[in-house]
Amino acid sequence: MEFASDNASSAAPEILAAVTAVNAGAAPSYGADASMARVRALIRETFEAPEAEVYLVATGTAANSLALACHCPPWGAIYAHASAHVDTDECGAPEFYIGGGKIVRIAAPDGKLTPGILKAAIEATPQGFVHSHQRGMVTITNTTEAGTVYSPAEVAALTAIARDHALPVHMDGARFANAVVAADCSPAEMTWKAGIDVLSFGGTKNGCMGVEAVVLFDPAKAWEFELRRKRGGHLFSKHRFLSAQMEAYLTGDLWRRLAARANVRAERLAAGIAAMPEASLLHPREANMVFAYLPRRLHRRLTERGAHYYFWPVDPSAEGPEDEPLAARFVCSWATQETEIDAFLSVIRGRD
Amino acid sequence: MEFASDNASSAAPEILAAVTAVNAGAAPSYGADASMARVRALIRETFEAPEAEVYLVATGTAANSLALACHCPPWGAIYAHASAHVDTDECGAPEFYIGGGKIVRIAAPDGKLTPGILKAAIEATPQGFVHSHQRGMVTITNTTEAGTVYSPAEVAALTAIARDHALPVHMDGARFANAVVAADCSPAEMTWKAGIDVLSFGGTKNGCMGVEAVVLFDPAKAWEFELRRKRGGHLFSKHRFLSAQMEAYLTGDLWRRLAARANVRAERLAAGIAAMPEASLLHPREANMVFAYLPRRLHRRLTERGAHYYFWPVDPSAEGPEDEPLAARFVCSWATQETEIDAFLSVIRGRD
Amino acid sequence: MEFASDNASSAAPEILAAVTAVNAGAAPSYGADASMARVRALIRETFEAPEAEVYLVATGTAANSLALACHCPPWGAIYAHASAHVDTDECGAPEFYIGGGKIVRIAAPDGKLTPGILKAAIEATPQGFVHSHQRGMVTITNTTEAGTVYSPAEVAALTAIARDHALPVHMDGARFANAVVAADCSPAEMTWKAGIDVLSFGGTKNGCMGVEAVVLFDPAKAWEFELRRKRGGHLFSKHRFLSAQMEAYLTGDLWRRLAARANVRAERLAAGIAAMPEASLLHPREANMVFAYLPRRLHRRLTERGAHYYFWPVDPSAEGPEDEPLAARFVCSWATQETEIDAFLSVIRGRD
Amino acid sequence: MEFASDNASSAAPEILAAVTAVNAGAAPSYGADASMARVRALIRETFEAPEAEVYLVATGTAANSLALACHCPPWGAIYAHASAHVDTDECGAPEFYIGGGKIVRIAAPDGKLTPGILKAAIEATPQGFVHSHQRGMVTITNTTEAGTVYSPAEVAALTAIARDHALPVHMDGARFANAVVAADCSPAEMTWKAGIDVLSFGGTKNGCMGVEAVVLFDPAKAWEFELRRKRGGHLFSKHRFLSAQMEAYLTGDLWRRLAARANVRAERLAAGIAAMPEASLLHPREANMVFAYLPRRLHRRLTERGAHYYFWPVDPSAEGPEDEPLAARFVCSWATQETEIDAFLSVIRGRD
Repeated sequence: MEFASDNASSAAPEILAAVTAVNAGAAPSYGADASMARVRALIRETFEAPEAEVYLVATGTAANSLALACHCPPWGAIYAHASAHVDTDECGAPEFYIGGGKIVRIAAPDGKLTPGILKAAIEATPQGFVHSHQRGMVTITNTTEAGTVYSPAEVAALTAIARDHALPVHMDGARFANAVVAADCSPAEMTWKAGIDVLSFGGTKNGCMGVEAVVLFDPAKAWEFELRRKRGGHLFSKHRFLSAQMEAYLTGDLWRRLAARANVRAERLAAGIAAMPEASLLHPREANMVFAYLPRRLHRRLTERGAHYYFWPVDPSAEGPEDEPLAARFVCSWATQETEIDAFLSVIRGRD
Repeated sequence: MEFASDNASSAAPEILAAVTAVNAGAAPSYGADASMARVRALIRETFEAPEAEVYLVATGTAANSLALACHCPPWGAIYAHASAHVDTDECGAPEFYIGGGKIVRIAAPDGKLTPGILKAAIEATPQGFVHSHQRGMVTITNTTEAGTVYSPAEVAALTAIARDHALPVHMDGARFANAVVAADCSPAEMTWKAGIDVLSFGGTKNGCMGVEAVVLFDPAKAWEFELRRKRGGHLFSKHRFLSAQMEAYLTGDLWRRLAARANVRAERLAAGIAAMPEASLLHPREANMVFAYLPRRLHRRLTERGAHYYFWPVDPSAEGPEDEPLAARFVCSWATQETEIDAFLSVIRGRD
Repeated sequence: MEFASDNASSAAPEILAAVTAVNAGAAPSYGADASMARVRALIRETFEAPEAEVYLVATGTAANSLALACHCPPWGAIYAHASAHVDTDECGAPEFYIGGGKIVRIAAPDGKLTPGILKAAIEATPQGFVHSHQRGMVTITNTTEAGTVYSPAEVAALTAIARDHALPVHMDGARFANAVVAADCSPAEMTWKAGIDVLSFGGTKNGCMGVEAVVLFDPAKAWEFELRRKRGGHLFSKHRFLSAQMEAYLTGDLWRRLAARANVRAERLAAGIAAMPEASLLHPREANMVFAYLPRRLHRRLTERGAHYYFWPVDPSAEGPEDEPLAARFVCSWATQETEIDAFLSVIRGRD
Repeated sequence: MEFASDNASSAAPEILAAVTAVNAGAAPSYGADASMARVRALIRETFEAPEAEVYLVATGTAANSLALACHCPPWGAIYAHASAHVDTDECGAPEFYIGGGKIVRIAAPDGKLTPGILKAAIEATPQGFVHSHQRGMVTITNTTEAGTVYSPAEVAALTAIARDHALPVHMDGARFANAVVAADCSPAEMTWKAGIDVLSFGGTKNGCMGVEAVVLFDPAKAWEFELRRKRGGHLFSKHRFLSAQMEAYLTGDLWRRLAARANVRAERLAAGIAAMPEASLLHPREANMVFAYLPRRLHRRLTERGAHYYFWPVDPSAEGPEDEPLAARFVCSWATQETEIDAFLSVIRGRD
């Protein structure tokens, strides 16, 4: 019963097979490998974006930070949801790469910005006033940190606000695949057709070993990206091991198939939890994550039975009423088994 | 005939097998995996350093930059050989991570600093003069960029100078294994016993896919290192894939065995070249790299026969006398075959 | 009727006289001037702190940023009131000097942190969790941005919380003189005796031309401060022109006398406003600033009569009900005349 | 006998008078003062550059660093003479403001780059090679650090090389006035007509208290400059005290008159030294600085008689032959008296 994070999951067999296959013989280093050329073609095809440029890094923090740094000056304000990973979980990496920047944390329900809330936040930054940060850019996360999903139309409504203020928009797509599957749309519809300028397209959480693609829909940023990647120490010498993962991930829609599996598992889990009278969901379940309140005693029983997942802000092992509802996050991955879901539901139903 | 770089080589079978094996099932992320615990124990054992701390990153640039940033303030001068990778080949990554720093390029023969030259360079930085950079730290590269090797005694003589000026010393060991094998010493003798404070211990060029260990002989820097690594985007979520490589590399002295193979190949190549009247070596061949002058016509023939390697500063395809001696670098790796060496020598001997 | 800011005021005659006097003949540069030696002695005497170190810069932004940078690592969170100048009015200068940092904006009434609110904010930053910023330092502003004043006892209560969490505390004293006069205490009581580690001691707003002293109660930070000041371009070559201002400011308690004058003016202004039925104060008037609601029609009349001051967020020239109460800030300085106050009060009382 | 530096000199009476005059009454802050508007007009007139933008800061380090930061990306190489102040005397301030950058130190006689040497240095940076710094910009110093002066034609020859490589050019004019007087040209001829993009126009060393103008001949950089200045803490609140200095400096060609006085003094000093058989000049005397070899015994006698100036690398108080020629720098300022020169010459002629 592993629900701690999708990054605790193993790599999918297709990914491992690709890494093994690419290992044969010598290969040009630093991204000049043949597999990277195929990745470039596959990304352009997948996103219907023949001009797009794509670069690979090994971590989501690197992908986000480099993408932001190419689009935001050191004095720029970055408008983000208050739960955004770039603000809460990257130890200041975006600001380090930007050489400044200020993340404006915007509270909004269910992890999702709305056009009105975003507009108000942007306009709260005075225009052309040298004493404060300047309006810099917008970043949205899809799948959000609350497990919800922006539809292409919702994305377009946000980027329209950004465009009205001449701001570029980044999408943190650490769980992009789960969002596209949930929204049942094309990658192009979810990104550039909806006004996105740059995407962090996650592989790691969804069955890869460690690879993220940064897709620049504005190829004018390509050389700057390459320089920033190198300066950040993120250019792999044996680059083929990144390329091979991404190539396999993009081939035959593996990325969608893996994400679909994770989403289906989460759907089953959410349905099971929601059916319990003493439990409730914090946010709608839309992709591969479930946020729920369970009474303290159920958390304790789950922990005893070996379930792994995160609670916050209160640890159920702390003193408190047995029936106090405490929040938790349950993440499913491509590797989550239906039997794990069922075992979990058995525990909370008191049958185990 | 692949002599371009050891980073063009594939991963050794033991490394790939370890990566495959570690993939089974879920594993804690961000370095809490069981393999990383074993890596820590293996490093301490290998280096006879029970207090040392070790962290993994995927690139040499990251290893060097983070190691330097933990030991040098933003206003520090970093004393390095003029050929040092940190100065010439990292697009300013060390300065980016340090948030400043100034690399003092020191010319010296065969890629090796000497105590006298180092002392003069340090003392040329005025002490306590607020207008200039301050004396910050020393970094030496072993195997050097000229393919030569510092012996433990030579390292100790340099660190003694640094210690006299209260400066810490970093070793860029992208090719540390080749140096240890060449010097026929223990890792401890080459590092902390000779006064090294922090080591970038390379795996990538020597048969891994992409992993470098930063070994901190002063564990007081550990937490700062972790924070800097995270901020740099170099903390892997699926960390086990780094750990497994390093664990296999350290097990059964694989790292020494792979390096020994590369060194032996380079020895054969150097001997063959040196025996040619129209060729000569630029630097003594001591590890896995050979630097040699060959006449332009031989470079051209080699290129026609498919040999890969770097020439500089002059490309032999440029116009010039047929017999003009032009410099080149030939790198052997764990994967270089004896047949490749022999084919190469056949070409330059005019037998092919 | 000049109430826009104390930084619109001229320099006091004593300051100008000192600058004129110090100009005679040659003088050593970069802080080695005789006047600076006297400043050092005067600061130590004024603050009863014989070990303290002091450095001069020309702007408050430089003073704050350098002071913070010497006490906070790049990954540190800086706990500050949501109205703090370092967050809202310095275009990211603190983060630029720190090379990172994250200002945690804490809302609290009347511009003043309380121990409970500060403690909660600090403890909301997880301890030792590599993914987030780390607890770094605390900064408090006295006189606050709301014109209120922390008493020494209130400062001590805040620094006690900081000390419990091993965090240093900075005081932004751009209007330190006004606060000390208002609290009727000694500079030592307001600072190191109350647990302050480093003070930005403002001169500019209180009758100087442009000088701020950074007082380091922990002299161990002195050399780092000097280096950061130089690197920031804030070390004056003709330093005597800074020294002379600060020397005159400290001599004969000029700094207290100038601040007392400003506070008295503000008191008269606040009393006059508070006596009007259609006006009200936003915050208690404690030093040299008055925050008040006035109906739109009075703002308009004041503007017509030539009064200068800031309104926000709403400009009274915008459409709206004549009687709508709109907020404004009125700042008095050492140079504010009683006649200006009386003219102002005449206008709002409808007698002019 | 004060020859240590022109920054040890006092402010000219016209400057002090202007500062005193500008002090009357309240004035808008942060550069909105009336004097600054006049400075802008005067700069445009003086430089025959109606589009130019100008900003004031208080130190040369700030002027240079901000000017460079607006024209060079973090990964840019900055081509400079090896003696350039930005490299040797600013403790890394340019790199701090640029957020990176790498100063390429170019050796050349008498402190002056030549087109051939500059071209070779630029072309030694590989083009479009992601592993190294990229060609960023050129900075030249006029008056040079060796006291020599580039003529407009020489400047134009250097900027032509830069332009061929699409690089902007900065002039560090800490002693710009001395150079213009020496070259007997117009400010326009020395700058934008000769291809300069941005100028640090020094006032401090030449009779001001502390003010430097950054003149942007490309006004497109203006807003970025303002933001960088604010972020650096270099925007003065009581800005009128900077403006008034610069306004007086530009009025009635005061800047040229003060520089002419300094140059004439240095000419007399150099002639006197050159006439001595046991002395010799290191560099041609062209502006207000004299570099000369004197025998150790003369240095000692000068020191005894109270002369102030810099020797390097050897201090004459160190043991050594009485007649050993040791180098020194003698700087004249607007305030240097003819009697000081004559007293100096008397000492070295043995008449005192």
